[in-house]
Amino acid sequence: MLLGSIEAGGTKFVCAVGDENFQVINRIEFKTTTPAETLQKAVDYFKQFTELKAISISSFGPIEIIKTSAKYGYITDTPKINWSNTDFLGFMKNNFNMPILWTTDVNGSAYGEYVTANEKIKSLTYYTIGTGVGAGTLINGKFLGETGHPEIGHIRLKRHPDDLNFPGICPYHGDCLEGLVCGPTFQARTGHRGEDVPLSDHVWDIMAYYVAQAALQTTLSILPEKIVFGGGVVSEQFLDKVRYEYNQLMNDYIDVGDLENYITMPTVKNNGSATVGNFALARRKLE
Amino acid sequence: MLLGSIEAGGTKFVCAVGDENFQVINRIEFKTTTPAETLQKAVDYFKQFTELKAISISSFGPIEIIKTSAKYGYITDTPKINWSNTDFLGFMKNNFNMPILWTTDVNGSAYGEYVTANEKIKSLTYYTIGTGVGAGTLINGKFLGETGHPEIGHIRLKRHPDDLNFPGICPYHGDCLEGLVCGPTFQARTGHRGEDVPLSDHVWDIMAYYVAQAALQTTLSILPEKIVFGGGVVSEQFLDKVRYEYNQLMNDYIDVGDLENYITMPTVKNNGSATVGNFALARRKLE
Repeated sequence: MLLGSIEAGGTKFVCAVGDENFQVINRIEFKTTTPAETLQKAVDYFKQFTELKAISISSFGPIEIIKTSAKYGYITDTPKINWSNTDFLGFMKNNFNMPILWTTDVNGSAYGEYVTANEKIKSLTYYTIGTGVGAGTLINGKFLGETGHPEIGHIRLKRHPDDLNFPGICPYHGDCLEGLVCGPTFQARTGHRGEDVPLSDHVWDIMAYYVAQAALQTTLSILPEKIVFGGGVVSEQFLDKVRYEYNQLMNDYIDVGDLENYITMPTVKNNGSATVGNFALARRKLE
Repeated sequence: MLLGSIEAGGTKFVCAVGDENFQVINRIEFKTTTPAETLQKAVDYFKQFTELKAISISSFGPIEIIKTSAKYGYITDTPKINWSNTDFLGFMKNNFNMPILWTTDVNGSAYGEYVTANEKIKSLTYYTIGTGVGAGTLINGKFLGETGHPEIGHIRLKRHPDDLNFPGICPYHGDCLEGLVCGPTFQARTGHRGEDVPLSDHVWDIMAYYVAQAALQTTLSILPEKIVFGGGVVSEQFLDKVRYEYNQLMNDYIDVGDLENYITMPTVKNNGSATVGNFALARRKLE
């Protein structure tokens, strides 16, 4: 039995097939161009695998996840050119007569981390801090967000005293979480790309202060057993700074145990969380 | 069949018995003194009602709600004098041989609003803004917070430009949500009690800016179908200001429908949400 994974990003698609143990058997990446061309490439890829039994799609958004909506399975009004109002799930269903699961990119990653966590956990939040900022939360195997997917990337934060003049770069909100810590903020703040800014630069402390607040808000409003940070901005050294700021902000108010186990990098390496998550979701959809 | 409700506050206890339709049949209030005296009063009260079949307690905290914990049913390390490490649930169980439910004060109120909502809803967050700030969230009939109860009162917020010099009054965090908007902040900011500060005073706009952020963070991180605000600070006129600030902050990013239905006062009048919630929880515990 083979399971299919589509990790649909605004820049690239990653399609993969895996076995029942969620091991990758085959994998392909291609650039996200027009919907017609890109989705057809995904279809052509999976058509090669006759043993495929189910597919899970975790997609960039915003997407419609309310099953009773006429637009269920669509990418809705995205800033990504050509992709607004794309019936992604419908296109796949027209090509494959099998169960197909539909969820957000961060939910796919969250599920991958949930099923591969080193300890048995009941709840987990997965943040991605990259081109954008988003998060998915699982509680007892179910995604948080009954009426749609939350957009925690746009919460407001207490500003760092050394960063008060930076207006933030979110086109909707200016200095929301995403507008303060997504990858492109390095260019906006320093004129350099993030990978060229050494971790000794104070801008990383400012970033850590905000990301720690994101973790704090999550603890205080959801209290998951673990918070995982993925995405291009995150490294283990950066998370050390985040843990430090988190401790300062929390001030011993809620004990979440050892912060090294509570705020972590993904267990699945090489950005593979969503692929594993999709395999697991595809298998669950079959059952 | 009669159902029992204990709304245990740090200032007073409200005990009530109600029928299967959650109508109050009898009700008593008394001051919160020592644990021994106060809990005995609750016991004596309920002993009068031979038809009592179940009790639900929604208590001030922090409380232990993890069932596998040795301290399950306790009020843990509260600043309330004499009450730290009080085995509240155990005391009641020693006196009554019937199902007894144990949850937080805000969860009790959230459940009361959930079962009395005018429309059928799947999820709801209830905030109290009074002496302290807290919230309870229900999703599909279950409380959010598997490993303990969240403490959303202590999230950080973007500061209002006209309020930057106010340090906040939370002993743990200074300018967290509670430190910025709980009832006693009126005294700290203006030297007057909240009920003596007219709604035309700019301090109410500042309060609304922060409370709107609390609602916004809730929408963006949990996306409940409804957010209810109770507690002494809240009025319908104040919520109008909150809705205005919420709209500005959200900037059309997520459509939650008519804000008049999304951000509301409690449906149950006269601070009765927790009593109704307890009756409903007691009945559920019986089933």
